Amino acid sequence: MKKEHKDIIKKAIRDIEDFPKEGIVFKDITTLLNDGKAYDLLIEHLAHRYRDYNLDFIAGIESRGFIFGSSLATKLGIGFVPVRKKGKLPYTTISEKYSLEYGVDEVEIHIDAFRDVKKAKILLIDDLIATGGTAYAACNLINKAKAECVEVCFIINLKALEGDKKLKDLAPVYSVLEF
Amino acid sequence: MKKEHKDIIKKAIRDIEDFPKEGIVFKDITTLLNDGKAYDLLIEHLAHRYRDYNLDFIAGIESRGFIFGSSLATKLGIGFVPVRKKGKLPYTTISEKYSLEYGVDEVEIHIDAFRDVKKAKILLIDDLIATGGTAYAACNLINKAKAECVEVCFIINLKALEGDKKLKDLAPVYSVLEF
Repeated sequence: MKKEHKDIIKKAIRDIEDFPKEGIVFKDITTLLNDGKAYDLLIEHLAHRYRDYNLDFIAGIESRGFIFGSSLATKLGIGFVPVRKKGKLPYTTISEKYSLEYGVDEVEIHIDAFRDVKKAKILLIDDLIATGGTAYAACNLINKAKAECVEVCFIINLKALEGDKKLKDLAPVYSVLEF
Repeated sequence: MKKEHKDIIKKAIRDIEDFPKEGIVFKDITTLLNDGKAYDLLIEHLAHRYRDYNLDFIAGIESRGFIFGSSLATKLGIGFVPVRKKGKLPYTTISEKYSLEYGVDEVEIHIDAFRDVKKAKILLIDDLIATGGTAYAACNLINKAKAECVEVCFIINLKALEGDKKLKDLAPVYSVLEF
C-alpha cells in the first residue's frame, strides 16, 4: 500500500484513553468506518491483496470482524461466514473454547458454514489482534471444519502483546497497521 | 427486483424450527451470506435501489445489520455507522431505550457518528423486522443526532407481527422479502 494511503487510514483511527478500563488506550475504528474515503482505501487495499488467493469464503469474528469481513467479501464477490460467540447461531455448530483473563469463552460456526466446498480456502478477519486468543480459536475452528485458513488478517496489530507470534503456528498473519 | 432473483435470495434463507425457543421458526440468514451469488444479487439490488437517494451514511443495527450494512456501504462507497448495544462504543454516546418482552434494552451511537454532515441522510438497515422495537429506537436515535432517517431497510419482514406499521410513523420502510 502507498504510504500516503496508509497514513490516511491510520489517521482515521481514534485513540480513546481508559476504555474499557483505566490504563488502556482503545483503538476506535468507528471513525474509520464513517469516513467513506478512508474506509474505501482500506477495503480496496485488502481486495487487491487477496484477489489472487482464490479464496472461497471470508470468515469474520463477531462483531467488528463482521463489518470488515462482509465489506471485503462483497468487494471480492464471495460468501461471508460469521464466527459467533456461543449460543447465537441457530443451526448445528462446531465450537472451540479459549481462555480469557478471567474464565473461558467459546466461538462457533455452523457445521455447514463452508457449504460443500472441499478444503475451502478461508481468509479469517478481525479488526484488531491483542493477545490473539479469539483468532487462535477461530483458526482452529476452521481447521476442525476441514477448511484451510490461508491467512488471518487484522486492521490493527498491537505488536507489544505478541498475539501474532502465537497465531503464526496456525496460519500466516497480515496486519494493515501496527501500533 | 426480478422475480427469479428474489426467489434465489428467498431460497437461500433457511428455516430453523424452535430457535431460540420452542414454537419459533428462526430465519437463518447465514446460508444467504455464504452463498456468494445470492448475496451478491441482494447487495446489487439494494445498491440499485439506494444509488439515487444521495445517502451520506448507512447505519447498521448490531450485529447482523453490521453485515448487510457494511456490504452496502462498500458497494455505494459511503461511510458505515454501527448502532450498538449499550456499553460497547468507546467514545461519548447518545442512547435510546426500548422495551423488550421482559425488561428494557438500549441502543447507542457516538455523538459524532455522522461527522460534521448537517442533516445527514441515513439509511438504517437490519436483517429482520419482527415487532420493530429495536429499529424504532435506532430511528429515534438518528433523529436525536439531528440526522434524517430517509428509510429503514430489512431483508426480511415478519409481516404478521406488524412491526413495519409502527415504524412507518418515523420513516418509510422497505423489506426485500415478506414472510
